[in-house]
Amino acid sequence: QIRLSEIKSHDGSSPRPWVTRGRSVYDITDWIGVHPGGEVILRAAGGSIDAYWDIFSIHKKQDVYDILEQYKIGEIDEQDLIDGKLPSEAIDDPFTTDPARHPELRTLTAKPCNAETPGKGLAEFLTPNEMFYVRNHMWVPVVEDGKHELTIELPDGEEKSYTLKDLKERFPMHKVTATLQCAGNRRKDMTDHAKATNGLQWTAGAISTAEWEGVKLKDVLADAGLKPESLPEDAKHAQFTGLEAYGASIPMTKAVDPHGDVLLAFKMNGKDLPRDHGYPLRVIVPGNVAARSVKWLRKIVISDEESLSQWQRRDYKCFGPNDTKPDWSKAKSIQEMPITSAITSISNPSSPPSDSKHDNPISVEGYAYSGGGREIVRVDVSTDGGKTWDQAELVDDQMSGARAWCWKRWRYSGLKRNSGKTTVLVKATDEAYNTQPESYEAIYNTRGNLATAWHRVEI
Amino acid sequence: QIRLSEIKSHDGSSPRPWVTRGRSVYDITDWIGVHPGGEVILRAAGGSIDAYWDIFSIHKKQDVYDILEQYKIGEIDEQDLIDGKLPSEAIDDPFTTDPARHPELRTLTAKPCNAETPGKGLAEFLTPNEMFYVRNHMWVPVVEDGKHELTIELPDGEEKSYTLKDLKERFPMHKVTATLQCAGNRRKDMTDHAKATNGLQWTAGAISTAEWEGVKLKDVLADAGLKPESLPEDAKHAQFTGLEAYGASIPMTKAVDPHGDVLLAFKMNGKDLPRDHGYPLRVIVPGNVAARSVKWLRKIVISDEESLSQWQRRDYKCFGPNDTKPDWSKAKSIQEMPITSAITSISNPSSPPSDSKHDNPISVEGYAYSGGGREIVRVDVSTDGGKTWDQAELVDDQMSGARAWCWKRWRYSGLKRNSGKTTVLVKATDEAYNTQPESYEAIYNTRGNLATAWHRVEI
Repeated sequence: QIRLSEIKSHDGSSPRPWVTRGRSVYDITDWIGVHPGGEVILRAAGGSIDAYWDIFSIHKKQDVYDILEQYKIGEIDEQDLIDGKLPSEAIDDPFTTDPARHPELRTLTAKPCNAETPGKGLAEFLTPNEMFYVRNHMWVPVVEDGKHELTIELPDGEEKSYTLKDLKERFPMHKVTATLQCAGNRRKDMTDHAKATNGLQWTAGAISTAEWEGVKLKDVLADAGLKPESLPEDAKHAQFTGLEAYGASIPMTKAVDPHGDVLLAFKMNGKDLPRDHGYPLRVIVPGNVAARSVKWLRKIVISDEESLSQWQRRDYKCFGPNDTKPDWSKAKSIQEMPITSAITSISNPSSPPSDSKHDNPISVEGYAYSGGGREIVRVDVSTDGGKTWDQAELVDDQMSGARAWCWKRWRYSGLKRNSGKTTVLVKATDEAYNTQPESYEAIYNTRGNLATAWHRVEI
Repeated sequence: QIRLSEIKSHDGSSPRPWVTRGRSVYDITDWIGVHPGGEVILRAAGGSIDAYWDIFSIHKKQDVYDILEQYKIGEIDEQDLIDGKLPSEAIDDPFTTDPARHPELRTLTAKPCNAETPGKGLAEFLTPNEMFYVRNHMWVPVVEDGKHELTIELPDGEEKSYTLKDLKERFPMHKVTATLQCAGNRRKDMTDHAKATNGLQWTAGAISTAEWEGVKLKDVLADAGLKPESLPEDAKHAQFTGLEAYGASIPMTKAVDPHGDVLLAFKMNGKDLPRDHGYPLRVIVPGNVAARSVKWLRKIVISDEESLSQWQRRDYKCFGPNDTKPDWSKAKSIQEMPITSAITSISNPSSPPSDSKHDNPISVEGYAYSGGGREIVRVDVSTDGGKTWDQAELVDDQMSGARAWCWKRWRYSGLKRNSGKTTVLVKATDEAYNTQPESYEAIYNTRGNLATAWHRVEI
């Protein structure tokens, strides 16, 4: 029988951290060193682990319960319970320190925050920071101004550390305009047009663009001892870990590509990174799925294998229509993204009565994007179900960087038939002349990832 | 009135070369220096230029006739004409020195030779040299063994020359397994399923794979003075010219990419390059359209613009369905190719009677390929018109090179319905999760390039 006050004293700064689960109390001191999620477990120390396991739901299985049970030291004192449960004020909410968000973001989940950019934000080339879509897997770490260190671990185990000051003073600064897109962007379209999918039901707003500023990863890796021209055999992947335990990796060929533009970024559209977007330090991997642009970056491990994290191994992969029970080990992690496009607004400048015999002028706008730095070379629009296509005008936005890491905005003016409903279709082509699949059925996957079929809007 | 015997003496080795066109005789000495096609014009000197203009049909227009007319010096003597025309034996056939070809190649045009690989050759991972598809724009140059020099011209006009011996002795040798594919592969499918297209009507055999051996272009360029880390501002494109005047270019980013594997190749599948495939020296640009892998390479010019050749500027581009009069200047040259796949054989191991109520086992084989070194990660087959898909087995062929520059062969065993005809469909996905468009209508272009819709074979 242990009192809550005593449990509270065994917090993350204590030499013997404890956690509770339900009524049970555990001394996890000996577990921390081998915990796959690393020291992030200390965030829960001194209180209940239940709120965290609701986020890291991977813990909710028997073998994890069994591990924890080995460290049990007692139960919470009856006096501290109400109806046999912990009172809600005694349970730490990991999200109380999250920043405020713009009310116009379309929130899918609040804890952790997942919110997409509304049409207003999608209409601009550079998405304003407060309109940039938010994809958080956990809470937002709290970092004291200027107090942060990045550690790089080389394949031989050697570690080098860099303060923010080191990074800013010792390496040349670079600007790169890059679009970040979630693998699940437009997942709701796949659900609506094919069938149910697992995951957040994003519409077309899990994508945004910013000008990022920072130092090149390849320069810092070279300083740490990894010269691109003589990489050790086992330097195959750069694994990134964030302060909140999120992790992911990219192939070293991308990490050290002289035209790859991978940044350790401090700034976003000319300002310090907002807390939601990785303050004070984030990786930006242009052309790759946003899941690899790890926020709140604290460690880089150079390894012969991909990140062991669940987000690298058991998420952000794609499957085929026949894969009803996906084999995660066989599917390739999503890195470069396929080509996609979307309509973000349709307007009707001079709408005649709907029973008019004349066709009806419409203006359509949207974006198109392809991964791997492949520039969008054309966007085609159809208002007759794909029988005929017109080419949209591509907007001449200016970007920084070695390749086309950005979306291309486009505009189209045409006619809509007045007799009944019209579906407006859009599809794009990139410089490798890849184009989008016509319909969702043939690219359907239970995860609903990479929903890139022709975008269709009925008006 | 000039006798044929005198004209003959003014051949390519004469200080005053002449050509004839129809009955007229021209002294082209002063024209050679400014001829856009360069010295290739000398191939026709001493005889009629008509056979060459049938190949270089770009000449058949008034402004070219006007230029030639300025150099007229007389007419062919009546005595040498039969019915007012040159006798056929007096007209040089530029193709008489072409090599013999394997009789099983499917010939589309004999002069110049354009012939595709038959199913037998497509079934092997490395296409046997004599089965490798042939795409010649002109005759095959005759090169004496070992007698060849490559010239590299830098942006400042400086030239460096390398004999074959220099290249072989001074640079490390590399092997790269690479698929070459014509931009027009499967053009006939587009014609059959959409509408008429201009160009050779290739089926699925304008593609082949070989192991190429040679030295890296980037190493030779570095020796010539172009270090990748400090390229001059105007070093944007590497322009290649062949002995027969064909020319094309690639972006410098590809030419010097440490993982780009661009070769100056001497060998193909372990043997000297066959004459049809570029003997003695050819560029291999893995992952790009084959039109950039210039054969019989004699010169590389580093420039701030693309090759001026018609094949770079007025060919090997792609358009949209609405571009009935293509604007060549606006379309981007095809470099990296989009993903495609094809069925190369369907067999029926134990065919029951066609009126059987049971489904009928079939085995299907084929290839899948994507440009830019993007590996094929899955191939899906449907026998019910795309309603359901099964995953094909990918063959584990071994390749050399930094990226996946090769086709992936695949096999599928399944059931075909016995009631009537069945269409077998195939589509592939690459590591950037790009996939193929469903049908030809939406990617139709008058040139019939990049016909990459799902391959359909009716059985």
